[in-house]
Amino acid sequence: MVYLTRRERFNAAHRLYNHTWSEAQNRAVFGKCANPNFHGHNYELFITVKGNVDPETGFVVNVHLLGEIIKREIVEKLDHNNLNLDVDFMKDIIPSTENLAKAIWKKLENFLDDCELHCVKLVETENIFVEYFGD
Amino acid sequence: MVYLTRRERFNAAHRLYNHTWSEAQNRAVFGKCANPNFHGHNYELFITVKGNVDPETGFVVNVHLLGEIIKREIVEKLDHNNLNLDVDFMKDIIPSTENLAKAIWKKLENFLDDCELHCVKLVETENIFVEYFGD
Amino acid sequence: MVYLTRRERFNAAHRLYNHTWSEAQNRAVFGKCANPNFHGHNYELFITVKGNVDPETGFVVNVHLLGEIIKREIVEKLDHNNLNLDVDFMKDIIPSTENLAKAIWKKLENFLDDCELHCVKLVETENIFVEYFGD
Amino acid sequence: MVYLTRRERFNAAHRLYNHTWSEAQNRAVFGKCANPNFHGHNYELFITVKGNVDPETGFVVNVHLLGEIIKREIVEKLDHNNLNLDVDFMKDIIPSTENLAKAIWKKLENFLDDCELHCVKLVETENIFVEYFGD
Amino acid sequence: MVYLTRRERFNAAHRLYNHTWSEAQNRAVFGKCANPNFHGHNYELFITVKGNVDPETGFVVNVHLLGEIIKREIVEKLDHNNLNLDVDFMKDIIPSTENLAKAIWKKLENFLDDCELHCVKLVETENIFVEYFGD
Amino acid sequence: MVYLTRRERFNAAHRLYNHTWSEAQNRAVFGKCANPNFHGHNYELFITVKGNVDPETGFVVNVHLLGEIIKREIVEKLDHNNLNLDVDFMKDIIPSTENLAKAIWKKLENFLDDCELHCVKLVETENIFVEYFGD
Repeated sequence: MVYLTRRERFNAAHRLYNHTWSEAQNRAVFGKCANPNFHGHNYELFITVKGNVDPETGFVVNVHLLGEIIKREIVEKLDHNNLNLDVDFMKDIIPSTENLAKAIWKKLENFLDDCELHCVKLVETENIFVEYFGD
Repeated sequence: MVYLTRRERFNAAHRLYNHTWSEAQNRAVFGKCANPNFHGHNYELFITVKGNVDPETGFVVNVHLLGEIIKREIVEKLDHNNLNLDVDFMKDIIPSTENLAKAIWKKLENFLDDCELHCVKLVETENIFVEYFGD
Repeated sequence: MVYLTRRERFNAAHRLYNHTWSEAQNRAVFGKCANPNFHGHNYELFITVKGNVDPETGFVVNVHLLGEIIKREIVEKLDHNNLNLDVDFMKDIIPSTENLAKAIWKKLENFLDDCELHCVKLVETENIFVEYFGD
Repeated sequence: MVYLTRRERFNAAHRLYNHTWSEAQNRAVFGKCANPNFHGHNYELFITVKGNVDPETGFVVNVHLLGEIIKREIVEKLDHNNLNLDVDFMKDIIPSTENLAKAIWKKLENFLDDCELHCVKLVETENIFVEYFGD
Repeated sequence: MVYLTRRERFNAAHRLYNHTWSEAQNRAVFGKCANPNFHGHNYELFITVKGNVDPETGFVVNVHLLGEIIKREIVEKLDHNNLNLDVDFMKDIIPSTENLAKAIWKKLENFLDDCELHCVKLVETENIFVEYFGD
Repeated sequence: MVYLTRRERFNAAHRLYNHTWSEAQNRAVFGKCANPNFHGHNYELFITVKGNVDPETGFVVNVHLLGEIIKREIVEKLDHNNLNLDVDFMKDIIPSTENLAKAIWKKLENFLDDCELHCVKLVETENIFVEYFGD
């Protein structure tokens, strides 16, 4: 079994805000991440799949096709958009890095035929990233 | 003369939009950068100053004080904010990387006493950056 | 379960030296890393914690609080110090990257309440890093 | 148990081509990676070993000796060579990143005495890497 | 005047070889870079243009159009090709990083209408790059 | 004229301290950089030379020979040493990044025959670097 990782990138706006809380509670927990007019990030997304190497191709998966799937199903829906307002699969979900990584997993796992999704790694800044390996 | 560069970072939302144009014209020129609900970036800011080396300290400028000035005058006003809505010195300016770099120069040059501002370099993504050296 | 990683950095001096060995043996094993007047590194520290995502916040842990803990308990004790001479929790320990990563784990695990420490990754140079996952 | 990783680099030419297929089939599967006159990459190789820390040295393994082994057994055979034509241990193997990582594992595991090979990570571009942990 | 830089990337094979020299002389000067079956690199190309900022757009140049031009005129001709054999504008030129940067300048300068080409920076490895500013 | 840059690296200890000042004054100006037992850095050194391209080789300078010169004259004298105690050409000089860059220039310019030294860039941390272009 070999693990193959493809990186894609997207630029999005978001804010962290719990609508069932008071403004003060949001500010206390989320700080400036709760600012009302949003801020944003250059997200880096690392999708890792695992599988056996096909002796005909030398591939676990065709990484260019994998890139196309990630771009079509994930990046085009997130890139240059607002994670709180514009993304159907993030509706009613606080767009933390953790929640976004889990939502990407849920969205992506249906589109992988010949290999298995192993990890969604989402880098928010050079100092913060999350990894999700499914449940 | 020695050139010293200090890097700072900020995360902000923005959109590119000319309010004197039609929606169609904005879309034609700015593409998805004009999306109404904003997107965002992890901006990297490199401030370069130049000067002679003080023989008492070995410094062109105390880089920690320089960092404090950049943080106080620039980063705190931009970080986790919306460049179209929240930043006084970007009011009525299209927040392109070019315009933001020029505005940062204009704001910062007044706060440097012992050295001279040489360059404002602003990195928007890993593929795009601008440099401004003053007029 | 989601894994969240926070990066912090510190700059420290050290040398590799076993005081029970002769000078020649130290030189044979550690080479120039045994130089008597020390050398140093820009260390990068990646702390990974794991836990369930709190539905109220979207967080495994508040990454800014995690950063504060790492800075207070680890970085402030190591940064701009000498790992052989200045750090109480490295007393009588050869300050190899391996030993330092283990000591950081031991020190840090007591301060994490809502999540579990998963990995201490310590990068010494762009070509060398270690990872410790506990015993 | 501690995991230690050493990075080495090599620059090589290759093409992806299955000699049992037609030209058209190669083109359909491998695209421009099948171009007849080769292309190339700056490969980054991360070798991770695991073991207990020797109390005399603080080392899992002497990372400089590990580097020497990787350079002698792997890098010198791949660097500035053609993976399709010049490398004995890649003979009759399609030089995909997956196959190269597996071949490096097979070649390297015999040369590690005091520690265990844990992972061969091979980075082909900033967007693509594979990891192999043995069978 | 503002300077704007766009990064593009390509992967290519090459060898350094002077056909008017003996094999021994090529080997003496170029070392393993003269290996007959080629090696290769992940090249990074930074194209810097300069100009005034258009008050209507905030742009020196539309960076996405600039990217399209670089991709169409340069990257598509170099990427996944062999610099010695496949590239019309490198015919009879030793494909050193220096010569390639100059050839890219010559090819690109004709396609920039609204701004001026300032610098072609070509990164061959993490340790070597060249910059060309025209004659 | 083409500019060629070679990167080398070294790891060194240092402290910032002016022996003609009181302890309090050193602490006031240099802060924790004055700590008595030293700290250290992974320095990155970028040496840029300029010259015409030799039509026989395609080179401004043989970058491998340039690397050898930098390693022999600079890196071997700084690497794994203490900039305050071990380096002859830094004797009685406060080892700030500025002063070290100037000293490297002075030392290196005598060893370049076929090209001209253009810039010494010295990176102390990911947030701080200096550039010196001679007097």
